[in-house]
Amino acid sequence: MVEAGEAVLTHARAGQRVVVEDPFGGQVGDLFAFVADDPTEHLSASHTRSALRRLFPAVGESFYTTARRPILTIESDTSPGVHDLLIAACDAERYRQLGADEGHRSCADNLAGALAPLGIELTVVPQPVNVFMNTPPTADGTIAYGESPSAAGDQLVLRAELDVVVVLSACPMDLIAISRGGPGPLAIQVID
Amino acid sequence: MVEAGEAVLTHARAGQRVVVEDPFGGQVGDLFAFVADDPTEHLSASHTRSALRRLFPAVGESFYTTARRPILTIESDTSPGVHDLLIAACDAERYRQLGADEGHRSCADNLAGALAPLGIELTVVPQPVNVFMNTPPTADGTIAYGESPSAAGDQLVLRAELDVVVVLSACPMDLIAISRGGPGPLAIQVID
Repeated sequence: MVEAGEAVLTHARAGQRVVVEDPFGGQVGDLFAFVADDPTEHLSASHTRSALRRLFPAVGESFYTTARRPILTIESDTSPGVHDLLIAACDAERYRQLGADEGHRSCADNLAGALAPLGIELTVVPQPVNVFMNTPPTADGTIAYGESPSAAGDQLVLRAELDVVVVLSACPMDLIAISRGGPGPLAIQVID
Repeated sequence: MVEAGEAVLTHARAGQRVVVEDPFGGQVGDLFAFVADDPTEHLSASHTRSALRRLFPAVGESFYTTARRPILTIESDTSPGVHDLLIAACDAERYRQLGADEGHRSCADNLAGALAPLGIELTVVPQPVNVFMNTPPTADGTIAYGESPSAAGDQLVLRAELDVVVVLSACPMDLIAISRGGPGPLAIQVID
């Protein structure tokens, strides 16, 4: 289980599946994926869009790395398929600008904390895959912010195409209504 | 002048204007901006979208950095206003996958070459602002690739909000029809 507002780091070997579950529904998560033997290569939103000419991979399609290699493939998705690949991870400055108290948890800090035991320090936070996040672009170029429509038990299954380190943060955002009913937990497991 | 397929680095102080011109029309450019006194902070596509809730800033709006500070503001735009903030810079691997000969010029290599004299080495290429690039998302989530609609002499004027280092690469892409009539030059100047 990924406790509300916290993050979990997990390893998956190429061919294994990373199962991301929204146990109670409506919860946004920030998912980051790094190549295990060289974390400077990581999942990249812009390289994924370049490869697919899509805003988000369809089932059967992959996320790509900064070196344009497939890293995770969407094998199945029981959710409404509403995820975000446009928006940066929340961070301390984001909460400062929203007027939160200092020390508010953030997905960026969660990521740094999860990677620290591996000795990985990032100078720039990669753009995450915001699972179950409902922020579609509209015809006039604006991005609509809506609540997550995922239901309790919805699962996104991602096949690892490389040996990967995955971090999932159950987004602590409580000042903008992106998670339904406020921040809750997520679940992640690796299966063969 | 930025010769076809090449890049130019320029400095602008806060308050100065960076004028990006498409002298012959239809030419895509990759523009990167770094904070002068700490280039680890740079223009970020995902932080810009987060700040604006738009796919691309409107005239009067700003691009934001990885630290969520305004870095460049669009002061005016005589082009049709068609620019891209979704697609990664072209790089050696992109051309390899497209079947080009080794050694094809790329915006990523151009950026590295432009920054080298300043002693700046990047581990990850920031996502650029692809000026005059016509790649809008469509209702089904696909990204339409069209030719650049800019006309000869079109200008995008960006006001520096911080002391910045700007790199503009006249995109050498000649295997996908994004620049009208093949790769051509661009122009960039800094004015008060």
